[in-house]
Amino acid sequence: MRSIITIAVLLIACLANAETISSPDKKIVLAFSLSGNGVPYYSLTYKDKPVLKTSRLGLELGDTPSLMDGFTVRQVERTTFDENWTPVWGEEKSIRNHYNELLVTLSQDMPNGRLMRIRFRVFNDGLGFRYEFPEQRSLSHFVVKEELTEFALTGDHKAFWLPGDYDTQEYPTVTSALSQVRSKMNGAITPNASRRPISPTAVQTPLLLKSKDGLYINIHEAALVDYSCMSLELNDTTFVLRSILTPDAVGVKAYMQAPAQTPWRTIIVSDQAGEILQSRLVYNLNEPTKYKDVSWIRPIKYVGVWWEMITGKSTWSYSDTNNVHLGVTNFESLRPNGRHGANTRHVKEYIDFAAENGMDAVLVEGWNVGWEDWFDKHKDYVFDFVTPYPDFDVKELTRYAASKKVKLIMHHETSSAVRNYERHMDSAYKFMVQYGYDAVKSGYVGDILPRGEYHYGQWMVNHYLYALKKAAEYKIMVNAHEAVRPTGLARTYPNLIGNESARGTEYEAFEGNNPDHTTILPFTRLIGGPMDYTPGIFQSDISVYNPSNKMFVHTTLTKQLALYVTMYSPLQMAADFPETYRKFSDAFQFIKDVAVDWDATYILEAEPGDYISIARKAKGKNEWFAGSITDENARVANIKFDFLPAGKDFTAIIYADAKNASFDKNPQAYTIRKIKVNANTVLEQDVAPGGGFAISIK
Amino acid sequence: MRSIITIAVLLIACLANAETISSPDKKIVLAFSLSGNGVPYYSLTYKDKPVLKTSRLGLELGDTPSLMDGFTVRQVERTTFDENWTPVWGEEKSIRNHYNELLVTLSQDMPNGRLMRIRFRVFNDGLGFRYEFPEQRSLSHFVVKEELTEFALTGDHKAFWLPGDYDTQEYPTVTSALSQVRSKMNGAITPNASRRPISPTAVQTPLLLKSKDGLYINIHEAALVDYSCMSLELNDTTFVLRSILTPDAVGVKAYMQAPAQTPWRTIIVSDQAGEILQSRLVYNLNEPTKYKDVSWIRPIKYVGVWWEMITGKSTWSYSDTNNVHLGVTNFESLRPNGRHGANTRHVKEYIDFAAENGMDAVLVEGWNVGWEDWFDKHKDYVFDFVTPYPDFDVKELTRYAASKKVKLIMHHETSSAVRNYERHMDSAYKFMVQYGYDAVKSGYVGDILPRGEYHYGQWMVNHYLYALKKAAEYKIMVNAHEAVRPTGLARTYPNLIGNESARGTEYEAFEGNNPDHTTILPFTRLIGGPMDYTPGIFQSDISVYNPSNKMFVHTTLTKQLALYVTMYSPLQMAADFPETYRKFSDAFQFIKDVAVDWDATYILEAEPGDYISIARKAKGKNEWFAGSITDENARVANIKFDFLPAGKDFTAIIYADAKNASFDKNPQAYTIRKIKVNANTVLEQDVAPGGGFAISIK
Repeated sequence: MRSIITIAVLLIACLANAETISSPDKKIVLAFSLSGNGVPYYSLTYKDKPVLKTSRLGLELGDTPSLMDGFTVRQVERTTFDENWTPVWGEEKSIRNHYNELLVTLSQDMPNGRLMRIRFRVFNDGLGFRYEFPEQRSLSHFVVKEELTEFALTGDHKAFWLPGDYDTQEYPTVTSALSQVRSKMNGAITPNASRRPISPTAVQTPLLLKSKDGLYINIHEAALVDYSCMSLELNDTTFVLRSILTPDAVGVKAYMQAPAQTPWRTIIVSDQAGEILQSRLVYNLNEPTKYKDVSWIRPIKYVGVWWEMITGKSTWSYSDTNNVHLGVTNFESLRPNGRHGANTRHVKEYIDFAAENGMDAVLVEGWNVGWEDWFDKHKDYVFDFVTPYPDFDVKELTRYAASKKVKLIMHHETSSAVRNYERHMDSAYKFMVQYGYDAVKSGYVGDILPRGEYHYGQWMVNHYLYALKKAAEYKIMVNAHEAVRPTGLARTYPNLIGNESARGTEYEAFEGNNPDHTTILPFTRLIGGPMDYTPGIFQSDISVYNPSNKMFVHTTLTKQLALYVTMYSPLQMAADFPETYRKFSDAFQFIKDVAVDWDATYILEAEPGDYISIARKAKGKNEWFAGSITDENARVANIKFDFLPAGKDFTAIIYADAKNASFDKNPQAYTIRKIKVNANTVLEQDVAPGGGFAISIK
Repeated sequence: MRSIITIAVLLIACLANAETISSPDKKIVLAFSLSGNGVPYYSLTYKDKPVLKTSRLGLELGDTPSLMDGFTVRQVERTTFDENWTPVWGEEKSIRNHYNELLVTLSQDMPNGRLMRIRFRVFNDGLGFRYEFPEQRSLSHFVVKEELTEFALTGDHKAFWLPGDYDTQEYPTVTSALSQVRSKMNGAITPNASRRPISPTAVQTPLLLKSKDGLYINIHEAALVDYSCMSLELNDTTFVLRSILTPDAVGVKAYMQAPAQTPWRTIIVSDQAGEILQSRLVYNLNEPTKYKDVSWIRPIKYVGVWWEMITGKSTWSYSDTNNVHLGVTNFESLRPNGRHGANTRHVKEYIDFAAENGMDAVLVEGWNVGWEDWFDKHKDYVFDFVTPYPDFDVKELTRYAASKKVKLIMHHETSSAVRNYERHMDSAYKFMVQYGYDAVKSGYVGDILPRGEYHYGQWMVNHYLYALKKAAEYKIMVNAHEAVRPTGLARTYPNLIGNESARGTEYEAFEGNNPDHTTILPFTRLIGGPMDYTPGIFQSDISVYNPSNKMFVHTTLTKQLALYVTMYSPLQMAADFPETYRKFSDAFQFIKDVAVDWDATYILEAEPGDYISIARKAKGKNEWFAGSITDENARVANIKFDFLPAGKDFTAIIYADAKNASFDKNPQAYTIRKIKVNANTVLEQDVAPGGGFAISIK
């Protein structure tokens, strides 16, 4: 009991000496303090409600005293910043970056002294802070054993969580009280090509929380560069979350050299769910773009030879042998399996379809040799990224695509043989330039080679950025799958036009995605950057394509349309087959029409796990598109058209669930109707279970 | 007792069913057999004396049944091979590759069957064998948990051993009975920048053994490609050595894909020590060169800006700061420490000296930015290999060296940041081509990044060969230090003109090398390929160069000369300072004269750990050079000149220890005399303690 009293006194002492700083609108207040023994703490309030209780800060280092205590405050600096910046692509044409900053310089009393800074930036939508290690004699090169940043929550919040894992985020989101995480963990860890769960109570970021007093809190990180990715270890008694970094093969979390800094730790907070979706805090904490010329970067709407392999209708590989050696195997002499998707004739069909329907590009997976034994075989030299299969005529397809004014999108599956990829990277990018490709989808399926490294460790974080910067040298855009979750780096490196880092549409063909999946992702995964979710599946019964695959898509058809608006991305796929789109050409019209770049975004309705309704204005055009989705429960959406310019009438085309539609029983029942709308219009629209609707307005 | 009887019966049964094959001269006999439960065994005799008793063969695999037992013999094939091949450089102009081969195909009874082959090649000088995994359905991609190849010695032999280690061979050789290995292990593990000792009884290869009945046995491996390096685990009760492979970060020893094979396991045996030195078995087990054009590969005699840093007289780094960032730090603005060796003026002095004395090239270490904090700091981006220090004018030095017809040798210290090296490799080699460098000394000091990988693991073995093949694309020769020990790969890739992989001369400035060191290395380390030992140190008292370094060279001056003959290498350094060579210009004449490539080699006397006398005929010339060295004991060498063509007189210049010379008290006392010699001459020459002598004959 005595120790508890001591702590209470100590915390009061902390607060007594606290440095505080508030957001420009004064709603959010950050307090920083040192305890009696020089331990740094911080706390956060929103409209006077506690968001984070007094939470400890610090790092354990290897082979040198920690940065956990023994600090005194040497200097406190306060600044204010306000600017508008123009993203290369995005949800709005201009983003305001407005914050008050508190920079605390701490010193430890040891030979030569030792300095650490903590930089807090308080925005109207939340807090970002990071540790900084200035250049100094006593701390130049060091090893981070663990970063022990706490996020002390105020109670047993509702959480939208994924199991903490060093290798994957491809898990269904679990919605539960924090106190239930432990009991639900085992069930939450679903199969994956590479997974490394952390502990019975570790969860990933971006983590969305909802407190009983109505606060929405998103915890994530920004600008993950040359450091390992952070997960959160939950103390399910105290509800304190603590950072846990991804280790390397010997357990080290990061190798550092001063001057250096950690990524920003971010807390977005609001009592309005929609404001979480509108937050650009993570981007604002990243550096402005490092590229002088960004003219080659552009949003893309694409189709691809992809869903047919995912469903099992066709194959990535050319043959059914199970053992090939690049440079040795004569692929010409292999017996074709007859189901190879990436063949010249078939790709031309996609090119034709793209050209006919205004799609920008065609992704082709399985075009290059090596897919016969690419997966789960510890193979190092698995792909060379420049050798097509015998039935893929890259020269002819380049010519043909160019004649149709369609781009081809390259595919670089690495099989996580990362050194092999780096060795071939220059020649692979040169090959792309030679054949007119300007975008690549890269993949990191399976355990990292060398074994012992994880997808989210510093080593790999370094690699993803290397691949991105190298691509920029060749003016190539990157869409990296299975890479580390995005942390807003696309502001700095806007050729990162997509990432996966969550369960995409492909899981509809594997296990199914929960109907509430896409009502959560914008609050979690998308906080760091766009996702190549690959929507647009109209044929929800997958056995139509592949009788042995009994899975189905857990949405109605028009919910698929709504996703083009609710799941923001500058890279949007129309993922289903051309013949299916031809069959549902009236609904496909929306995909043809919908913009992929925006002047403005309006969050109309939002509740994580339940529903989202968003409207957006197309970039540089007087066109608007809206999308509304729900979870497994039917609802009535309430759409106010006050985002439209006042005093003008527009025609809205509404693609909506039919009366009897539902994701599991009748997904393809939809209606399309035109109505007149203006800024005063309010639409009450029925949404089917697992359904959604889309609106285009001109 | 009963089990012992069972084993005895079993071994007899083995022998009863043995397949045997002998060397072309019938002296060596290999027997192969399967035990009753299908365990493969082999044994080896030399002139009817047992060399290896019945020794088990096999491999443990991960996640799949082992390749240890359950075999039946499916096929036995016998072939004979005899050819002469011409090395690009070497100890003789032509090498005979003559062996009888036994290829045993074994099968395991399991679904689809499983095949493994063991290929034995018996030469007049020993045995090579390897495991082969043919392409087959039941074994395509697999993981080697451990290779369990035994070498069952016949007794408690005298061994010349290094502590088993996954990272370094830079240990003094211990000479002891095998039974003493355990008790001497702790003392044998001396400090190193990266070391990872294996066990209390593990030793490295090449391991030299001498049996009580007078056999010299060398155990090593040949053609280490895409596999991890083998050490030997000693059972010091039974004297059975067992292979132990270098693991990766998760403990896996090798990732394999059939068709595949292990490196050759080699046993060189003779009752004449000199025949061990004459063995080319390891080269013969490597593939012929893969290069069509080898005209750009040539032996090199060189000087360099190197010993001055090793002794501590000057520095690799330009400044004394301890924290630099490539691309950020302005090296121009750093305060020079005034002791930077690789400065333009000083390098020109070396170029002048090389030109005046017929040296081919000048090595310059410390020319490129990054040395301020290169070592032991876990730095990844430590060097970029293309940015000179401000005081190193690469353009001017290129011009100057070319005008003097001297080559510059590039230096690439990687600091074991291997990914960083590979990322920069193309630009580094291009830079070399641009500035006329055609040879590089590479270095791998410190623990491998990523941590968890070892210098001798499959991952790194793969890297060294990658670097070598990439260099060949640019017609660049490679001298790799701290890389895995050579296994004859220079036959296949003859641009590998040097390796370190043992304690070189540099240790004379660190701890000292034992006087017997160089009487052992030709029997051990040099069996796999040449060593860049960097002899030629005339100033044995190092404090003359750096008063704070109290070390001294453990040889006499003329022993340094002898090393140019006894330590074969196509790359020979004259490692001391120009001013020292000018001071001892009469002795330096031998270094100027001595050849670095040979038509023929004659082992005149040899006893490992005691003495070696070798004569060699210069390539394409009627010139001969001889060298003779001893350990700490004085001796009288007995040199027969019968290697000379009969019936002709020649002038021999003899560089010998003076009467009162000794390595520790009077190392610089030498005499130079001329004598007439012919094929009948016999010279009795006194050799001082730690001494040696050199002879040049024209």
